[in-house]
Amino acid sequence: MKDKILECVPNFSEGKDRDMIEKIVGPFRRVEGVKLMDYSADKDHNRLVVTLIGDPESLKESLLDAMAVAVREIDMNRHRGEHPRMGAVDVIPFIPIKNVTMEEAVDLSRQVAREAAGRFNLPVYLYENAATAPERQNLADIRKGQFEGFFKKIRLPEWKPDYGPPEVHKTAGVTAIGARMPLVAFNVNLATNKLEIAAAIAKRIRNSGGGLKFCKAIGVDLREKGMVQVSMNMTDYTKTSLYQSYEMIKMEARRYGVTVTGSELVGILPMQALTDVAAYYLGLESFSEEQILEHRLLWED
Amino acid sequence: MKDKILECVPNFSEGKDRDMIEKIVGPFRRVEGVKLMDYSADKDHNRLVVTLIGDPESLKESLLDAMAVAVREIDMNRHRGEHPRMGAVDVIPFIPIKNVTMEEAVDLSRQVAREAAGRFNLPVYLYENAATAPERQNLADIRKGQFEGFFKKIRLPEWKPDYGPPEVHKTAGVTAIGARMPLVAFNVNLATNKLEIAAAIAKRIRNSGGGLKFCKAIGVDLREKGMVQVSMNMTDYTKTSLYQSYEMIKMEARRYGVTVTGSELVGILPMQALTDVAAYYLGLESFSEEQILEHRLLWED
Repeated sequence: MKDKILECVPNFSEGKDRDMIEKIVGPFRRVEGVKLMDYSADKDHNRLVVTLIGDPESLKESLLDAMAVAVREIDMNRHRGEHPRMGAVDVIPFIPIKNVTMEEAVDLSRQVAREAAGRFNLPVYLYENAATAPERQNLADIRKGQFEGFFKKIRLPEWKPDYGPPEVHKTAGVTAIGARMPLVAFNVNLATNKLEIAAAIAKRIRNSGGGLKFCKAIGVDLREKGMVQVSMNMTDYTKTSLYQSYEMIKMEARRYGVTVTGSELVGILPMQALTDVAAYYLGLESFSEEQILEHRLLWED
Repeated sequence: MKDKILECVPNFSEGKDRDMIEKIVGPFRRVEGVKLMDYSADKDHNRLVVTLIGDPESLKESLLDAMAVAVREIDMNRHRGEHPRMGAVDVIPFIPIKNVTMEEAVDLSRQVAREAAGRFNLPVYLYENAATAPERQNLADIRKGQFEGFFKKIRLPEWKPDYGPPEVHKTAGVTAIGARMPLVAFNVNLATNKLEIAAAIAKRIRNSGGGLKFCKAIGVDLREKGMVQVSMNMTDYTKTSLYQSYEMIKMEARRYGVTVTGSELVGILPMQALTDVAAYYLGLESFSEEQILEHRLLWED
C-alpha cells in the first residue's frame, strides 16, 4: 500500500429498505482498491452512512456507481427522517489518510462533483476545505432549508451550485461534496452532575470560545451515570492533540473543584492521534511513526 | 492479513562479505508470505541481524533455505568478532505478533529446530519460552564458552542438544532456536551525570531487583550528553506497560532530587505498546484497538 489513501464517508437518504441499501453499497464491495469499512442505516434518521478507504481513482469510480443507484432509486419527495437532509446522496466528505495532501483531497472532491453533476444532472455544492466561498464551508449552512426549501434557495444568486444546473433535481435534490481532516470524537467525563460546569469548560477550551484551534466542544448531561461530559470533536489532531484538550479540561475543572473521572474515544481514529499522546506523556525525544510495526507493515513495501 | 503472523530475528555469523550476506537473505526476498523488514551487518561484530515478518509456514521455508546457505558457506573456525557467538546460524527467535499464541510460536521453533537438525546434521538448543529446562531459558547461559568452547561443553550430559547429534558441526557450530515476546527497548534520561543514581534506580525498577516483572534495566552513562540513562528492555509490554516503568523511574528519581528529562524508544515496537500508554494517561474507559484505523486496515478483512 504505497498508494495514496483517503477515507470517504458518503451519506445516502435511505435507512429502511435493506434491498436498496445493499444495492447502494454494491459498488463499494465490487470495486477493487476500495475497502468497505462499515455501513450503518438508521430507521429514525432514514439515512445510510458508509465508511470507505481507498485510492482516489477507485473511490471515484465506486462513488459514481453508488450515486447512480441512489439518484435513480430514491425519491426525496417521499423521504421522511429526523436527520436534516437535502438530497438522495446527501453529502460526501473526502478525508486524507496517507500520502495525500488536503489539496489532493479537495481536487478529488471537485472531480467527483463535476462528473456527478454532468452525469446525473445534479446540483452540487462544495463544502469545508473544498468550499468556494466562506459561507459554504459549514455543511449546516448549505443544508439549511433542506430538500423542500431548496427549490427556492437554489434561485438565490449566493446559492448557485458549484456544479450542475441551477435547479433542484426533482427526485434526488442536491448534494454536498467536500474535503476535511479526520475527526476524532473524544469525550471527557467530570465527577459532577452540574451540566453548567461541563458547558462552561467546553466553552473555554473550544476554538469559538478562545480555546484550542482545532477543538469543537459542548457540555453533555449523562443522566444515567449521574455525570456530565465535555464532548469534543477534534478537527485536526495533527495540530491540536488530544492531550492538549485533556490537560486543558483538567486545568479548567480545578476552578470548580471538580475532578476528571475518565474519557472515551468514539469510533475510528488514526493511530497517530494516540501515539502523539503517548509520546507527549513519556517525553519521547525522537520518536517516529516508522518505528511502529503496524505502520511499517501497512505503509511500506 | 487474517493469517497468523510472527516476527523472526535470525542472527548469522557473517558481517563483512556483502555477497554472502545477500546470498543468506535471498530466501527472505524470494518466499512469498515473508516480508524482509530489515537486515543489518556489523563488521566489528561480524554478524548479520535480519528482521522478518510472516506466517509460520513461509517463515519456516525461508529460514531453512537461508540456514542451508549459512551452514554451507560459513566456517566458524575462521570467524572472529566482538559479539559472542556459537554457530553460523547463531540464534533464531520467533515472536508472536498477531493471531498467534506463545504456544504456537514455541511449536514453530520446535519444528524448525527438528527439521534443521535433521537436514544439516546440526545440534540445536531450544531457549526462552521454548526451553526444555530452566538453565536453557537464558541464551547467554547456552552460548557461554562460544563456538570454541562447545566441543567440550556439548559432551556434558546437561548440555546435550535438544535436537541433532551430540557433536558440534565442524564448520557451522551449534544453533539456538526459541520463542519470546516482542522486546521494547525503552530508555529514560535523568538530569544528572551520576551513573550510580541511574544504576540504583535501574536496580529498583527491574524484576531481578524486586521491581516490575517484565522489565530488565541497567544504568548507562551518556557522557557526551552529560547525563545518565536508565536503559530498559520491556520483555512483555502486554503485562508490564511502558507507563509503569516511566512513572516508577520518576518516583525513584525524586529520592535523589533528580528529574527525568525525557525518553527514547529504540527500534521497532508494536502499536499496542504505545496505545496502552495513551489510554492510561487519558483515562480511557473502554478503548479497543479495533478503533484504530491502521489496525482495521491491517488485521481485518
